[in-house]
Amino acid sequence: MQEAEKVKIDLALIHYPVVNKNQEIIGSAVTNLDLHDISRAARTYGVDSLYVVTPYSDQQELFQELLDHWLKGGGAEYNAMRGEALSLVHICDDLDQVLAEVTEKWQRKPTVLATCAREKHSVMWPYRLVRQKITGGECFLILFGTAWGLAQEVIAAGDGILPPITGSGNYNHLSVRSAAAIILDRLLGPREI
Amino acid sequence: MQEAEKVKIDLALIHYPVVNKNQEIIGSAVTNLDLHDISRAARTYGVDSLYVVTPYSDQQELFQELLDHWLKGGGAEYNAMRGEALSLVHICDDLDQVLAEVTEKWQRKPTVLATCAREKHSVMWPYRLVRQKITGGECFLILFGTAWGLAQEVIAAGDGILPPITGSGNYNHLSVRSAAAIILDRLLGPREI
Repeated sequence: MQEAEKVKIDLALIHYPVVNKNQEIIGSAVTNLDLHDISRAARTYGVDSLYVVTPYSDQQELFQELLDHWLKGGGAEYNAMRGEALSLVHICDDLDQVLAEVTEKWQRKPTVLATCAREKHSVMWPYRLVRQKITGGECFLILFGTAWGLAQEVIAAGDGILPPITGSGNYNHLSVRSAAAIILDRLLGPREI
Repeated sequence: MQEAEKVKIDLALIHYPVVNKNQEIIGSAVTNLDLHDISRAARTYGVDSLYVVTPYSDQQELFQELLDHWLKGGGAEYNAMRGEALSLVHICDDLDQVLAEVTEKWQRKPTVLATCAREKHSVMWPYRLVRQKITGGECFLILFGTAWGLAQEVIAAGDGILPPITGSGNYNHLSVRSAAAIILDRLLGPREI
């Protein structure tokens, strides 16, 4: 298969500011498997970069070690496919840094959409609309929250939200790994299934 | 929101027989996060049960401890949503036991579909077709492989396969957690996105 024309879509996985189960603002620890799973899904669907946002230098160092293992160390020999996915990962201090890098890369400001498990007071962008705009060459940065989700200030600072993923009932407690996979399939997967 | 009419769909996560990177048949270790992520997605989309298949009694005991923690122990107090998802999990020795339990539950034999990352010599069931049949009340058991995927003998013993999930290019190395989430959304998610 040939690679399709490059789409201008990036993801950011936010570790601060997010909320805990009591809706208090916290910084979360970076999770090994989040990076593997989300970068593999991102690579599958042609996403340009996965920005991992944490202000904590010890966490940044830990994750640089993980990336080095899979990109240059023993992991690269064991399974080159992991490195191919993790090469999409960039570690950033905060969302401002992500926005600056993305804007420089595409030479324009992206539309920033947050994701959340519940409806919020924000503009809702249907998946089919975002899908059309991506195909039309527009730039999007999609934000994912770890822990119990993005802090309201992050959601409010963006241009809107993607609709929460609901299934057949009232339970919608997907992991961020599962939510990211589903959202990428909805935005970038085949229309005919 | 009301719960939708019950669909007759079950998942099985197979730990033996699966293959390693050299396509040799192995038994894999049960992974904590597979159970959390896939059961949460299953619960979200109204799946009846997630059968975790491993013949190893030490693995079965380990995972019974994990289930007990979230269903009855400290985890149940900390986060009841995890137990609500993990209550869908049943541990089985092999696929024959799964088939017997599912057949007894629905009072008929399910259509058994395997999932794999590459096209195999098997009947391919398009997602839209399976979706229609699920809506029409038919029973399906969807098999997921851990490690590097289901052994060929498991794929051959079923009624067919679901199409591999491909994105924009030739990289399709999703985690089983991500693949399960995407497949559930394709089979059971909203048609209008």
